[in-house]
Amino acid sequence: MAAEVKVVLKPLGDRVVVEPIEEEVTTKGGIVLPDTAKEKPQKGKVIAVGSGRLLDNGERVPLEVKEGDIVVFAKYGGTEVEIEGNEYVILSERDLLAVVQK
Amino acid sequence: MAAEVKVVLKPLGDRVVVEPIEEEVTTKGGIVLPDTAKEKPQKGKVIAVGSGRLLDNGERVPLEVKEGDIVVFAKYGGTEVEIEGNEYVILSERDLLAVVQK
Amino acid sequence: MAAEVKVVLKPLGDRVVVEPIEEEVTTKGGIVLPDTAKEKPQKGKVIAVGSGRLLDNGERVPLEVKEGDIVVFAKYGGTEVEIEGNEYVILSERDLLAVVQK
Amino acid sequence: MAAEVKVVLKPLGDRVVVEPIEEEVTTKGGIVLPDTAKEKPQKGKVIAVGSGRLLDNGERVPLEVKEGDIVVFAKYGGTEVEIEGNEYVILSERDLLAVVQK
Amino acid sequence: MAAEVKVVLKPLGDRVVVEPIEEEVTTKGGIVLPDTAKEKPQKGKVIAVGSGRLLDNGERVPLEVKEGDIVVFAKYGGTEVEIEGNEYVILSERDLLAVVQK
Amino acid sequence: MAAEVKVVLKPLGDRVVVEPIEEEVTTKGGIVLPDTAKEKPQKGKVIAVGSGRLLDNGERVPLEVKEGDIVVFAKYGGTEVEIEGNEYVILSERDLLAVVQK
Amino acid sequence: MAAEVKVVLKPLGDRVVVEPIEEEVTTKGGIVLPDTAKEKPQKGKVIAVGSGRLLDNGERVPLEVKEGDIVVFAKYGGTEVEIEGNEYVILSERDLLAVVQK
Repeated sequence: MAAEVKVVLKPLGDRVVVEPIEEEVTTKGGIVLPDTAKEKPQKGKVIAVGSGRLLDNGERVPLEVKEGDIVVFAKYGGTEVEIEGNEYVILSERDLLAVVQK
Repeated sequence: MAAEVKVVLKPLGDRVVVEPIEEEVTTKGGIVLPDTAKEKPQKGKVIAVGSGRLLDNGERVPLEVKEGDIVVFAKYGGTEVEIEGNEYVILSERDLLAVVQK
Repeated sequence: MAAEVKVVLKPLGDRVVVEPIEEEVTTKGGIVLPDTAKEKPQKGKVIAVGSGRLLDNGERVPLEVKEGDIVVFAKYGGTEVEIEGNEYVILSERDLLAVVQK
Repeated sequence: MAAEVKVVLKPLGDRVVVEPIEEEVTTKGGIVLPDTAKEKPQKGKVIAVGSGRLLDNGERVPLEVKEGDIVVFAKYGGTEVEIEGNEYVILSERDLLAVVQK
Repeated sequence: MAAEVKVVLKPLGDRVVVEPIEEEVTTKGGIVLPDTAKEKPQKGKVIAVGSGRLLDNGERVPLEVKEGDIVVFAKYGGTEVEIEGNEYVILSERDLLAVVQK
Repeated sequence: MAAEVKVVLKPLGDRVVVEPIEEEVTTKGGIVLPDTAKEKPQKGKVIAVGSGRLLDNGERVPLEVKEGDIVVFAKYGGTEVEIEGNEYVILSERDLLAVVQK
Repeated sequence: MAAEVKVVLKPLGDRVVVEPIEEEVTTKGGIVLPDTAKEKPQKGKVIAVGSGRLLDNGERVPLEVKEGDIVVFAKYGGTEVEIEGNEYVILSERDLLAVVQK
């Protein structure tokens, strides 16, 4: 169902819109993020990316992630929004920890 | 009615004047911002933009948003002002999270 | 009466001297700043401006505001001084939010 | 008496030595600094100035104030010293708010 | 068993993925990290490294560590994730203290 | 006695080694530092200076003070060490407020 | 015994590995660090140095200290590790205060 959602948010600056992926079972090769961690990391799919961080010399640096990437992020840094009943998180790129490789 | 208001505020630096949009019903394709979030995001229309952020090399960087844009912003960062009975928020661009695409 | 005061303060750096404008009634087109806001913004007239912010490369950037401008500012950042029985506020330009356009 | 004191302190960096001026009566054109303000500003005479702030590129920027200037400063930022029974304050230039024009 | 795990996380920026090494016995030439230290350091193996820290001039600086390095790190700075039943830590390079030489 | 001490400490970076001067009596032209001040300043003799502060461009800036200078410093910033029964303070140059001129 | 330890830690960035020197008796010319100081300084021998601090322009600045130097350091900034029964401290160069000259 999530795949049918047309994203209507364009993040600003170094921000990304991420669709969280809830994952409770440890499957072979899957990543399980501990529910008890103090600073709970979370997995999600990048839905949209901003134009990049603005450097002090006036250049913009494109983000390291792109639409479709599965990322691990520190949940505390994001802001939750809801689009058509699905929840998304808007995060700064510096709150993204890693990309899950395919 | 809001459309008839002639904006009389010119924001300074990287600030914008935003007219908040209250939205309580989930319509098809609409964005519902959760009322329970700790750091409640909000939707609004950009009414006026500043001349941009001043870089350390003396250049000004124009804002990424323009008048008329619908934006999602973190409410805590803004300052509320009232013009002709309508409430507006003056925000720094870094407190704007995303633009709602048309 | 305020118009007869000859300003005797020259602000330093990126500071400005502002004469606060108290405004309790909502007039047509007037701006009413809510008295209940946590971080109460205030309106005032710029009486004098400093030589500008010093950049890391040694240049000074002139302020965006000039004498006579009516500005909205965040009150908490300023320091109050009294000249000939009138109260003024000395503020850094970054505590000025917007200019009221004529 | 204060005029007879030969200053023996050379401030370092962007610091200045200021001789505070106590002023309790509102004279015509005089500046009265409210005694009740939370962050009490104070008036004083600049007695000596440092060589200036060091920029990241290695240059020194001369201070905006000079010996003899009457300045308004935020008291909290300074360090009090006593020379020949007179009290002085050593302040960073950024704690000086404005110069009283003659 | 850990050796058979194919790493599926690509760290972002100056981050690394580290597999912690638990070591309770003091062996000849081994390093024992005191369990009682307030800010407990920990030993681990670098499993994957990010593309490097982004400088203000737009360049990326490759990390000083590489896959396979045994590092000592300050535990508090990392975020724990679990892959196939093994626990990993995602850390910023600045939280790595030293490399154990072979 | 202090004059016979051969300094054995070479300060690092922008640090200096200072030998505190205790001074309880107000002599003619002498400086008395109030004992009751919250952030007690102190007088001392510079015994050794570091190689200077490292700028972001890689240059080192020599200190403004030299061996033998009598300085006023904010005591809180320093670290006390004892050499041959005499107490010294190691301070960063930014904790030195002024030089006492001869 | 300490002399026989082959150091197996290579510090990262501007860090150093220091072997603390406990010194309780005041010998002629020796330095005694007061045990009662709030922020207790400590003496130690530099065992290994990192590749240096990374400047914003991408250069690395070699450390001011080298292996074998006896240094005074602020204890609070370091992380303790144990190698073959001896305790070491990993410190950032900015936590080193001075070098003891021979």
